[in-house]
Amino acid sequence: MSTISGETGQPPSAILLISCPDRKGLVASVTEFIATHNGNILYLDQHVDVEKQVFFMRIEWDLQGFTIPRASIGTLFEQIANRFAMQWSLHFSNTIPRLALFVSRLPHCLYDILSRYQTGEWPVEIPLIISNHPDLEAVARRFDIEYCFFPITQDNKHEQETRQLALLREHRIDLIVLARYMQILSGTFVSHYSHQIINIHHSFLPAFPGARPYHSAYARGVKIIGATSHYATAELDAGPIIEQDITRVSHKHTVEDMVRQGRDLEKLVLSRAIWYHIQHKVLVHENRTVVFA
Amino acid sequence: MSTISGETGQPPSAILLISCPDRKGLVASVTEFIATHNGNILYLDQHVDVEKQVFFMRIEWDLQGFTIPRASIGTLFEQIANRFAMQWSLHFSNTIPRLALFVSRLPHCLYDILSRYQTGEWPVEIPLIISNHPDLEAVARRFDIEYCFFPITQDNKHEQETRQLALLREHRIDLIVLARYMQILSGTFVSHYSHQIINIHHSFLPAFPGARPYHSAYARGVKIIGATSHYATAELDAGPIIEQDITRVSHKHTVEDMVRQGRDLEKLVLSRAIWYHIQHKVLVHENRTVVFA
Amino acid sequence: MSTISGETGQPPSAILLISCPDRKGLVASVTEFIATHNGNILYLDQHVDVEKQVFFMRIEWDLQGFTIPRASIGTLFEQIANRFAMQWSLHFSNTIPRLALFVSRLPHCLYDILSRYQTGEWPVEIPLIISNHPDLEAVARRFDIEYCFFPITQDNKHEQETRQLALLREHRIDLIVLARYMQILSGTFVSHYSHQIINIHHSFLPAFPGARPYHSAYARGVKIIGATSHYATAELDAGPIIEQDITRVSHKHTVEDMVRQGRDLEKLVLSRAIWYHIQHKVLVHENRTVVFA
Amino acid sequence: MSTISGETGQPPSAILLISCPDRKGLVASVTEFIATHNGNILYLDQHVDVEKQVFFMRIEWDLQGFTIPRASIGTLFEQIANRFAMQWSLHFSNTIPRLALFVSRLPHCLYDILSRYQTGEWPVEIPLIISNHPDLEAVARRFDIEYCFFPITQDNKHEQETRQLALLREHRIDLIVLARYMQILSGTFVSHYSHQIINIHHSFLPAFPGARPYHSAYARGVKIIGATSHYATAELDAGPIIEQDITRVSHKHTVEDMVRQGRDLEKLVLSRAIWYHIQHKVLVHENRTVVFA
Repeated sequence: MSTISGETGQPPSAILLISCPDRKGLVASVTEFIATHNGNILYLDQHVDVEKQVFFMRIEWDLQGFTIPRASIGTLFEQIANRFAMQWSLHFSNTIPRLALFVSRLPHCLYDILSRYQTGEWPVEIPLIISNHPDLEAVARRFDIEYCFFPITQDNKHEQETRQLALLREHRIDLIVLARYMQILSGTFVSHYSHQIINIHHSFLPAFPGARPYHSAYARGVKIIGATSHYATAELDAGPIIEQDITRVSHKHTVEDMVRQGRDLEKLVLSRAIWYHIQHKVLVHENRTVVFA
Repeated sequence: MSTISGETGQPPSAILLISCPDRKGLVASVTEFIATHNGNILYLDQHVDVEKQVFFMRIEWDLQGFTIPRASIGTLFEQIANRFAMQWSLHFSNTIPRLALFVSRLPHCLYDILSRYQTGEWPVEIPLIISNHPDLEAVARRFDIEYCFFPITQDNKHEQETRQLALLREHRIDLIVLARYMQILSGTFVSHYSHQIINIHHSFLPAFPGARPYHSAYARGVKIIGATSHYATAELDAGPIIEQDITRVSHKHTVEDMVRQGRDLEKLVLSRAIWYHIQHKVLVHENRTVVFA
Repeated sequence: MSTISGETGQPPSAILLISCPDRKGLVASVTEFIATHNGNILYLDQHVDVEKQVFFMRIEWDLQGFTIPRASIGTLFEQIANRFAMQWSLHFSNTIPRLALFVSRLPHCLYDILSRYQTGEWPVEIPLIISNHPDLEAVARRFDIEYCFFPITQDNKHEQETRQLALLREHRIDLIVLARYMQILSGTFVSHYSHQIINIHHSFLPAFPGARPYHSAYARGVKIIGATSHYATAELDAGPIIEQDITRVSHKHTVEDMVRQGRDLEKLVLSRAIWYHIQHKVLVHENRTVVFA
Repeated sequence: MSTISGETGQPPSAILLISCPDRKGLVASVTEFIATHNGNILYLDQHVDVEKQVFFMRIEWDLQGFTIPRASIGTLFEQIANRFAMQWSLHFSNTIPRLALFVSRLPHCLYDILSRYQTGEWPVEIPLIISNHPDLEAVARRFDIEYCFFPITQDNKHEQETRQLALLREHRIDLIVLARYMQILSGTFVSHYSHQIINIHHSFLPAFPGARPYHSAYARGVKIIGATSHYATAELDAGPIIEQDITRVSHKHTVEDMVRQGRDLEKLVLSRAIWYHIQHKVLVHENRTVVFA
């Protein structure tokens, strides 16, 4: 990861994401670690899954005046982590995540993401757009971003994914966004980016997984349609849900009307999921997410 | 049907519900029928299912000054109806529908409905509560309504349904409301009250049909839960949807929290569906509803 | 208005918008006019303001097989219109409206509108962007649209508006969209485009009119923020409301968070209002709108 | 306060609500206090108002195994509290709050609250209903609750409030709920129950304060109506907002329709505010609330 200073001008902060078996003294130990080294807590979110006895925490503190140098925080924290069998990750607010966008033919999510990128709404880098169709190259060019076209057939899929993975590594990609990418990624591909691939599905999962959900929603006569953003896993449309939202429909709505209204929903839901992820607000445990929104 | 004058004091109106194959001149013929006999249209809602070429209409007009006597409207309208192969029904705003409530052990929908009844929010009569459990008899007594307990086993189900049907006929029931009634009605029973039985299912159908939907929603990690009101059909949780609504949940919500929040949702969604039905705003076509809300 | 064929490939339809004092026989007369000339009604929406006794109607019919030539429809309809003292306008579905966008420094609504334009979501032409700041010229260039910078001071405001009006006429503009334009238009300017200027205000009007609504919302401690799209009138933020929507906030939200969430709301609400307008679904009566959504 | 064991059967927990100037080491000190005495944290919610540099915390821990006896927790915690200049309160999950309901003529909120009470949804006692009208006495009797009628005129208001206060004290009331009580409480009265009186206002405040908000909403032509629950303060409709929600309306809605839809909104919003309050999830600071929902 690069560590270019963020666009906000705010002093950088450190963010710890923690999950572990629930025990007494967890919060006290972590907060004491920060207080002892003169850190000021900015946000503390904590959750206990009472049923499974798992503890989750996101803690963010100001690095200004913190007496441990950035490079040593992890090493020193490891002692506490080991004591409690924590799974943890450490992030810094001024590290800029690098995103790759995967698209097919539908441009609405792509435009939405690029607009947010271009206007500086998100502190990210987007060096790369990958597609299985040539259609959206003009959009990429409009925003001066590299567009890589990988035509995919049953025969070349494995080979093309291998090339895509090489390209992603080369660009040091932290997060893959499937912005209405209409090609299923293999389990192998997904395994390289566990909880680092965000997909948008155009239904209120688990209703209407798979293809043509708006047609199915119409046929069932639902009064509300939805969109779901989730981490991609080997099983289609079954990964941990990050965000969902809905919009009302009525008998007046044709399938085309649902598709039109759904586009706005997909844009919103996907962009919120990306926002939570790049703010390091999402933890995953057994196919469910904890989102400290 | 009784024809007791409604509580509103407004002059009565007539309501025609129509569906038929779409043809030119439909609206003109119906509105001319009303205009010719000096009727003033209060509401006209019309919908064309373009895909299936079906026409739907709800038209309501003031009976004050209308030159056809109430009892002859149907006979005279039949000529137009036959010309266009219409399915139609005629209703009067001051006819009070008679409801039977079916309940099991959960009281929240029952209390909600009885409160609306008691405060005069709905122009209905509720002469009868039927249950497969004795638990809610005290609630019925609190509101001075007859409570009929029909314990149901695999062996006596057919017999008990026969007795229930007799009771419903005796009380001239127009609409059955399954207010969290946790017993599946037989296809035979349902066939006696086609599109006259409203059920509330505690999920956002078609997600999580069947038993324990909040548990399933929790396990899947959804960020939104819902409730669905639909006409009961022979197939469980598959009837035409009248109304749905949702509420947000997060990782903080246990199953019990979902159950608690869900109760408010169930009350709201069921009461809206009942409202639409008793206002004669719902038409059904091939398992989808047209709701002129 | 130009009459270039729309992008949908569907056969063109005609749309009548009508408002007049409520009388018996109104719907019958209009629908008979269409039926007599072999028109097939696609949509009919009708509303009676019972309190003010005003009748509103939007009726759309297929022009295929309609026996009156397009150019004569208005003339022939005028007889009915005069009989009922109707205010009316006639539109054709394949006429492409021409939009001018007014912007200042905030790019999010501009990007959103241009993306919808570029992807063909809206059947419109956008020949022109007008601004009181030079900041967003690069965005306009990215989408190959003319950007006209009119610096405005107290002294030159009248003169600049005169030049803007000339430019709008020259480009035959049908609809002006104030996409977060932070300069108040004069009453004179507004009077030239009555109900043809759509503004987006970043609050849930009538709460928090004027400047810095997110700051005021924060100070008041509201739990929900909103956005409002309305026709601009001489009085600031007081014109007829076309569309509103809201989003939840909590004590966690700083003013900056509200601004960030509000951007998505503003984009959505403005784009819906534009959509309703260009579909000829909005009628205005005494500062209230009828939106046949 | 009485300390009758709650209905849930769960072991009791302690809840600390804290607000104070933000300082380093706050969370560490509080959590260490609990950990040292063998307490297991169930929930920890913390918030820093960055602008005003105020720290808020709600911390709940299991009393099972906690080594400080219940009666001594406050005394021992005081040392930490003083060090950080904390405002704090200590609560126990199995203490049952005692509510008084104030009503006038509209029964819907009263029915809703009594139904929740009766079904055991809320762990509260409701010994008392107070009204300035005799109308709802029958409802109170239906639920076997004492109904005290205090007719109020300009002349007797002070005297009646004095008698009401005596009655509230006698019944050891912890929370007053104004369930559509249409009589303004004096500043003196309110001062006796600071942040212990919850009101429901039938608009989306700060829009439409005062009387007849639905009429004002209709006149302004808004597309969304709302309800607001807030703590009563000396200034009408200006107290700290606890909860708000909204529902869509359209040109089809008369004022009466808004009133009807609004009732459901009022019930929901008021009941959520009561729920947050009795769960000790609300902190107030300078007319804004922190709600750890």
